Order: sequence, then C-alpha cells, then structure tokens
Amino acid sequence: MADILRIDLSSDAASSAPLSGDLAGLGGRALTSALVATEVDPKCDPLGPDNLLVVAGGILAGTSFPNGGRVSVGAKSPLTQGIKEANAGGQTARKLANLGIRAVALSGAAGELSLLEIDVSGARVKPAPELKGLGSYDTVAKLRETYGDDATYVLVGPAGEMQLKSAAVVTTTPDFLLRTASRGGLGAVMGSKNLKAIVINDKGAERTKIANPEAMKAAASAMSEGIRNHPIMQGLGALGTPLLVNVASAGIGCIATRNFSMGAFEGADKISGETMNGPLTSRPNAETTHRCMTGCVINCSQVYTDEAGDLVTSGFEFETLALLGSNCAIDDLDQLARLDRLCDDIGIDTIETGAAIGVAMEGGMLAWGDGKAAEALLKGITSGNPDSLLIANGCVATGTKLGVSRIPAVKGQSIAAWEPRVLKATGVTYATSPMGADHTAGNMLPTETYDSSVPEGQVPTSQFVQTYFAATDALGLCLFAAIAAADNMDTLVPMLVQAAGAVLGEELPPDYLMQLGTKNILQERDFNTRAGMTAADDRLPAFMTTEVIQPRGLVFDVPEAEMDAIFAG
Amino acid sequence: MADILRIDLSSDAASSAPLSGDLAGLGGRALTSALVATEVDPKCDPLGPDNLLVVAGGILAGTSFPNGGRVSVGAKSPLTQGIKEANAGGQTARKLANLGIRAVALSGAAGELSLLEIDVSGARVKPAPELKGLGSYDTVAKLRETYGDDATYVLVGPAGEMQLKSAAVVTTTPDFLLRTASRGGLGAVMGSKNLKAIVINDKGAERTKIANPEAMKAAASAMSEGIRNHPIMQGLGALGTPLLVNVASAGIGCIATRNFSMGAFEGADKISGETMNGPLTSRPNAETTHRCMTGCVINCSQVYTDEAGDLVTSGFEFETLALLGSNCAIDDLDQLARLDRLCDDIGIDTIETGAAIGVAMEGGMLAWGDGKAAEALLKGITSGNPDSLLIANGCVATGTKLGVSRIPAVKGQSIAAWEPRVLKATGVTYATSPMGADHTAGNMLPTETYDSSVPEGQVPTSQFVQTYFAATDALGLCLFAAIAAADNMDTLVPMLVQAAGAVLGEELPPDYLMQLGTKNILQERDFNTRAGMTAADDRLPAFMTTEVIQPRGLVFDVPEAEMDAIFAG
Repeated sequence: MADILRIDLSSDAASSAPLSGDLAGLGGRALTSALVATEVDPKCDPLGPDNLLVVAGGILAGTSFPNGGRVSVGAKSPLTQGIKEANAGGQTARKLANLGIRAVALSGAAGELSLLEIDVSGARVKPAPELKGLGSYDTVAKLRETYGDDATYVLVGPAGEMQLKSAAVVTTTPDFLLRTASRGGLGAVMGSKNLKAIVINDKGAERTKIANPEAMKAAASAMSEGIRNHPIMQGLGALGTPLLVNVASAGIGCIATRNFSMGAFEGADKISGETMNGPLTSRPNAETTHRCMTGCVINCSQVYTDEAGDLVTSGFEFETLALLGSNCAIDDLDQLARLDRLCDDIGIDTIETGAAIGVAMEGGMLAWGDGKAAEALLKGITSGNPDSLLIANGCVATGTKLGVSRIPAVKGQSIAAWEPRVLKATGVTYATSPMGADHTAGNMLPTETYDSSVPEGQVPTSQFVQTYFAATDALGLCLFAAIAAADNMDTLVPMLVQAAGAVLGEELPPDYLMQLGTKNILQERDFNTRAGMTAADDRLPAFMTTEVIQPRGLVFDVPEAEMDAIFAG
Repeated sequence: MADILRIDLSSDAASSAPLSGDLAGLGGRALTSALVATEVDPKCDPLGPDNLLVVAGGILAGTSFPNGGRVSVGAKSPLTQGIKEANAGGQTARKLANLGIRAVALSGAAGELSLLEIDVSGARVKPAPELKGLGSYDTVAKLRETYGDDATYVLVGPAGEMQLKSAAVVTTTPDFLLRTASRGGLGAVMGSKNLKAIVINDKGAERTKIANPEAMKAAASAMSEGIRNHPIMQGLGALGTPLLVNVASAGIGCIATRNFSMGAFEGADKISGETMNGPLTSRPNAETTHRCMTGCVINCSQVYTDEAGDLVTSGFEFETLALLGSNCAIDDLDQLARLDRLCDDIGIDTIETGAAIGVAMEGGMLAWGDGKAAEALLKGITSGNPDSLLIANGCVATGTKLGVSRIPAVKGQSIAAWEPRVLKATGVTYATSPMGADHTAGNMLPTETYDSSVPEGQVPTSQFVQTYFAATDALGLCLFAAIAAADNMDTLVPMLVQAAGAVLGEELPPDYLMQLGTKNILQERDFNTRAGMTAADDRLPAFMTTEVIQPRGLVFDVPEAEMDAIFAG
C-alpha cells in the first residue's frame, strides 16, 4: 500500500492516505506531475504559497530491483514557469517506501524556517532557526548530530533559502555525501515554503512489501545481469560519467563549449574520466566508484579528494564537467571539483550555473577559462554580490542583463551539455519537452544505425525517447539502467514491466511503459498550455538554427511544423 | 636551352651559361637545392654574403602545360639554418623562361640597396635608394611607373630589408597583385644581399621553344582536361582554398586552432570559403576567381575588396585563414583580409606570423581573438616596436621570449595549418622533411581507403608524398595540379613525365618523378646533416606526442625509429 503524505506548511496540518483514483499506481515523475497538474493553478506564482512541492519515490522504490531508487521532486518551476520534475539519487525514495510513503506533497508556506520530520510515528513540522544560512554540507552535519545515521536528508542550501532561481533540492547518499535534484529551481520552491530540510528516518519500519515477490525476484535478477553485461555500464563503472567527456568532445563533437559556440573542447582530455582516474587512484581517501543509493549495481560516481585526502566532492559528473568546464573553457579538474563542491554547498544546479557563467564570460563579466574568477563569483552568492546573484538566477537573467545574444536556454532554463545541432533528436527533446532542455528528458546519441545529424526522422525518435524516459522516471529507475534496458528492448524492457506489475499486483500490458509515459507527458504539456505556453516556447534558441556548430558544421534544422506535431497522434 | 644567370652582387659581375653536368635538366626546387647544396657552406651565416639566393623556374616553365609556372626560391634559411626552398605563383618563371633563363643565382651582397634588371639585352644591378623602406604594394607601383607592364617583379618588403626571419620573397601576378614565396625567411636572405627587387622584362624575347612540341601538346591537353574534371579542382575554382576551412575544421578536425591546442574552431564557418563567397559576390570589384599565373586552369584565388570596392588583398588563402584566423581565434574575415594585406605589404609569411601571434596570445601578449591588437602588432614592425619585431622573427623567437611551452615549430620554423596529430603522414613529413614543417612538402588527407589517424604505415606514405611533391616542385607544377595528377596515377602522372621529356628532349623512364624527387631530397638531407642537424631535428614538438588534440582525441605516436629510417632505403 503506497500512501501520499500531505503537509500544509501554513497550518502544519498533516494527513496521510493511500494513493487512489487517477493517482493509484503512479510514482516518481508521473506522480509529481499528476499532483501538480491537478492541484496547482498553472498561473500561480511558483514561489508563492499556492505552489505544491512534491517529493515522490518511483514505483520500484524500496524493492530489490536494481537502480530503482531515484527520487522525483516536482512543482511549478520558477525558471520555466511550467511544470517541472527533477530527480536525484540518494536514500529518500527507499526510506519513504519503507515507511509506506510514495509521495510527500507540501503546500502552503511555513511562517519561519522549518524542518519536516518523517518517521514511523508520523510527520511533524518544527522550527529550525539553527539551520538558517547553513551550507548543504554543514546542514547535513548538523542534522546528523541530532538525527543520526538511520535518517536520510532532503534539504536546500542558502540559494534555496534565498529563492534564487537555480536553487536545487539536495539529497544524501548512504554515506551522507550530497546529490541534487537540480533543474528548474525547485530548491527555490522549497525555500519559498520556508522549509530547510526533510528528515526521513525509517528506523523501526518494515521493509517494503510487494504484491508479487517471485516475479520481482526474477525481474531484478535479469535486470542486474543485463546491466552488468552492458559495455557502457561497465565503462561507467570504471570511469563514471566523466567517461562521456571524451566521447562527446572527441568522439561526437557535441559537448557544450565556450557558451555553446563549439562542439569540442581543446582541454577535454584534461577534464576527462581517463584523466580524473589519476587523482582518484593516487590520492588518499579518493574512490573510483561510488553509489548514490542502495541497490545500485553500476556505481558510476566517485569520491574526489584533494592531495591531502580531504573530501572535495562526490557526484562530480559529466554535465558539471561540461557546463562548468568546456562551456567556460576551464580545464583544471581540481578547480572544477571546487566549483562543483561550491554549487552543492550553496545548493545550485551546476548546469544552470555553468551556462550562466559561460554567458557571463561571453558578455565580458569574467575571462574565458578563469576558474578562480568563477569561484569568486560563486562565493559571492551568499553575501549578495549583485553579479553573483545574477549568475544564481540563471543564464537567461545573466544574458539579458549583459546584453548577450547567444543565450542557450529553452523555456527560461539552460540547455544541458549535449549539443542539439549535432544530436537533433535530443534537440527536438530540448525544444518540446514540457521539462525544458534537460539531458534526462530524452537524449539520443548516434549509433551505427541512427544518424543524429540529419533533420529527417528526429521527431518520432524524440517522441519515443521522451516517452520511454518519462516512464522510467515514474519507475524511479536511474537513467543508465533505463538505457541498458532500452538496448535490450526484447529482454529487459519486459523485466521493467514485470517488476512494476510485481509492485502493483497487476498483470500489466506489454506497452505499459509507453502508455504511462505518454499519459504523463500529455498531462504536463496540458499544464504548460494552461500556464500560457505556446508553440513559440517549443523552440531552441534562434542562434542554433543559424550558427553552425564546429567541428561538425551543423545547424539545427528540424522543421518546426514537424516539431509542433509531436505528441499530436 | 636553359641557362643559369649568375650575379655576384658584391662585384656586380654577371655571367650566363647553359645548365650542365649535374644541373642539366633540373628546374624549380631540384635546381635551387642542387645549387645551394653544392655551392653553399652548410655552416655559413644565412644572412651573410656566403649564402646563395637562387630564383628558378620549373622544368615546365614557359610551356603550354597547365599550372606549370611556379617559381622556386632557394637558399640556406635563417629560420631553419638548413636548406630551404619556397615557391610561388606569379609570372617570374614564365618570363625567365621566355628569356631562356631557368635560374638566377645571386651571390655576395650589394653595397647599397639595389635592384636587378633582367631583359633581352642582359642583366644589370642598379642602386635603388628610392625603394628603401617601401611596402610591397608601393614598391610594385613605383617599379611599374619605371618599367611598365611588360615586366614582372620579384621583391622584398620592409621585413626583408630589415632581415627579419619571417620575411618572404614577393612576386607579381599577371595583373600585378602579390604572391609570396613565404616560408623559411628567404626574404631576409634577399634583404641581406641588399637586393630590393628583380625586374624581369621579356619584351622582345621569343616564346619558349621546346624539344618535342607535339608530345607537349598532347600531355598539356590531357592534363588540362584531367584538372577540369577533378571535383576538388572544381571546388577550388568555385570557392578557392578557403573551401578547405570547413573541410579541415568540421570535416577532419585538423585545423590549427588556438596555438595548436585544438583541431577545430567554433568560428570556422565565419572564415570559410562558403562565407567569403558573400562579399566576393556582392562587393564592387571583388572577384570570386583569380589566377596567379598565366597557364592556370584552376583559378583557385580571388580578389577581396572592402565594401567600397577598394582592393584589400588577393591570394587570401586557407593557410592564412587558419594560422591568423582559427589559430589566433580571430573569426572576422574583413579583419583577416587586412592582416593578410599587411603581411604581404610588409613582406612576411602569414603562416609564421599567425603561429607567432598564436604563441604570443598564449603567452599573454595579446588576447585570444583580438584582431585589432594583432593588426597593431604588425603595423609596429616597420617602426621597430620590440614586440612586433619579436613576432616578425617567428614563433620560436616569440615563444622562447615569452616562456611559452607550446611552440608549434620544427627546425625553427612554424608548423603549417594541417594538424599532424590527426594527419600522421603529414606529421612525418613535418618532422622529417628537409624543408621543415611546410604544408606543401607532403601533406596527405584521409581518404576512404587511407586512415591518417593510426600510427602504422605513415612513414612510407610520407616518403612517397614527400618524393612526389619534391618532383612536382622541380617541374614548377602547382600543388593542386600535382594532386589532380596523383589522383589519376595511371593516366595523368605519365603526362607529367611526357611533358618533362618534351622539354628536355629525352625519353624519360616511367619512374622519372620518383628518381628526381628522391635524389633531390637526399641531397637536401645531406646538406642539413652537414649543417649540423641530427635525428633530434626530425621531430615534432614534444607537446604533440603528449597532449591529445580535440575533437579527434589523438596524439602523434608514429614511432621515432620508423621516422629515423625514412629515405634510408
């Protein structure tokens, strides 16, 4: 039985009830979006009390299915002004599931800075003045002093408290390192509700029970084996997502470089997984592999320390290396690790931040490649430096203020690192996804049989991957496991359906995922339409249709009429 | 009958005699190198009177064979301290041939700034104080006032007079635009001899007679048709060598960018042939095609004017666009055209200059992409600005002074625009050619059947193309015609042999070109050995073996032992 826990922060009223009606059987993004779409006024102020912040585990949360523990955070976004979901690893989904909770829906706003405790005895909101202004690292340390290591933590850094538009929602891994649901400024929504943290303690809870344990066991076993045998997953296990730096730069020519003016970066190898492996294998306390959540069999992350062995950061990912690295022409791994740590500690999205700094570099605020100046800018956020606040409000705010014409954003939110002029189905996703230009919303790299560079045929490809990844976001499945399954469409995708059916106690149809994803996306698109978006919002920035991207020499040239017909039939 | 005209500038003694002995039948680079190798002390000061400056037409000069009118200039180089040949278009070779002269060999040094007149009545050296300090454009204008349009002119700009190491020897086209024999600082050698100009007037001369006119006619006809039917030559006719910008950047990822730290440039399309076609077709007096010499059937050049229709430059080529453009991150065509004009007018090599400015940008002397600062630097050469003089002495001088570790040079001379980590046979050529890293010494682009990116097999490929292009340099054949012939090895290469035989009155063996090129290169290598060069000089700069070049992710990894064995057997 999966419950929804509703908390009205204005009144401290808490209630819990089984998911039912249209919400029954949903999880992850499908659930956050269903709640936001049906309960939030599309025209409301996303930073006002009428917005709803939803934290939801996926359908597979708490089960033995591998890599199924992602947590979705959803609300109306202050960056896109549309419906938004961002998901992260960490223990949130698992511990909520152990407590019988699939989603926490937070309405209203607290009168003072507060935290929310959830445990076997219920849920309660408490003032938390002692956490005011604390960085994410200090917040977790302070919470652990009080609540210990049986709990997991969901929180915002100072940027969330300040309601800055790039603010992220931060979660914690099994070993209390940080992960973020970064995109769309959902940390600002949490901050607007005066909620600094959610403490989830599953001590004393029974482990998640599911309807059909045998079917789950078989599906989980097949999936684990499928992931372990997948060559890309093996590569990710060895070098992590930084493996993708050289793939995207040297291999495909599609890595964001110098404010999206280039598709490859001369310093790519210096910030690659291959290079990062040096400090990870030689420095004290560094780890080449790390998992963000219980049940992960890929271990794509790492623990990055300095030469003395002190932690700098973890979850130091491809998107961060690209947006803060190549996109800003910064090629120093230690410098980038410090920037990543600062973003996590302040609680902001590294993608939006890297895009904003790239725009600021183009606009002359700081020099290309000047990592120290970027670091100083980030450090100025908490002290209210005006340039720093501009950056923390995102790349559109920064570019507009500086008069920069090349602003890499869709629906007010920055584009992720995968260049859409080279990856045109990804470009269609960036343009048309109700989420804005997320790398997780439907990215499609070229294969031996798929040419990403031609304009023809990209819309159906995008529609398929958008739908599929929306469905796996509902499962709470990590993106890489979803890719491993997609590459084994006949053998592993049915295991995803079988696992969901095992949780829900139903025999699900073979096209369950497509049905789930389609319904989800149509609901999101409808919300955005009601919020005032039109086809004009389903566009890449104009410069991408006129400026060729080197080294591939391509523009984005998928016909607009085709894009406008996506999800129409 | 082909004569060699010898002028001792120290004594004004002139003598003329048929080429004989080992020199008989030679032309172009084979002849300049044979003279320098046998008559110049390899240990001499290249800027002293013991150096010999040779100006020689190719074997096919003055004939009806298409594209056979290049002129070679040879001497010991002040940049490489080895034997050097650089060749150019223009009318020099044809007019010398019409006068029965294949080579002019200049020894000693004049006591004051002088010019050399060559016409049907003989040769004479005259003081030329009125030309002192004049730019190339003004020099040509002043000479035309005196000598008119029946003559052609070979000259140096102020840089040659100042004996700066990047100084070029300048020639004139049929319509008195400028072309340069740029590489190796041969203009400084001419300047060291106090020779400002050579005036070659063939009025009253009989047209070149050859031994076997019928064989020549057939060969010339086949070759013209072969060139006209070659798709690359058609492309060069349409867009000129700037066509290669997008090919090298977007297509192959092998264009010198930001001081050879990258193989593709975000601004490539802005400086491409496709983009240049805009101003060339819309501006008054601009021309999309232009030929540098009589007998050209490719017309790869152009006339670039400003918006008012005033001439800016001609012969605005790929190497210039790459070294001054992508290599310096300058993406403004009008700016680059002004820089090209300045280089021609001052009389310096655009390749060496672009490489030096790229190094200066890396060293902080000026900002990446700052075309105006580059223009100011060039303008400072004639007034003796110390930074400007550093640039004009080449990239090694600049990089050494600024303490830059990435200096893209071999044998003291800058590398051309084609990235050797991607084009590895070209890399072998750059490393081992006795000429240093010239793009004309043996460049090899990838084809469907040839992979330029692997270390294996590149040495024999380089040896073949080095030998072939040395031979076509002896013919006086332009590089593109040589490529068209090489792409039709069975049908057109025999036409080259037949044409040379028609001039020389001999039945030449089928492997004539390989014999000619091999003998030439071995003679040049021997000179360099006697000048003190060792295998250590046959190396690319070390950074190219350790720093990967993006977007291709390659280092230069051809085994040194293999390179050391080139031309050994």
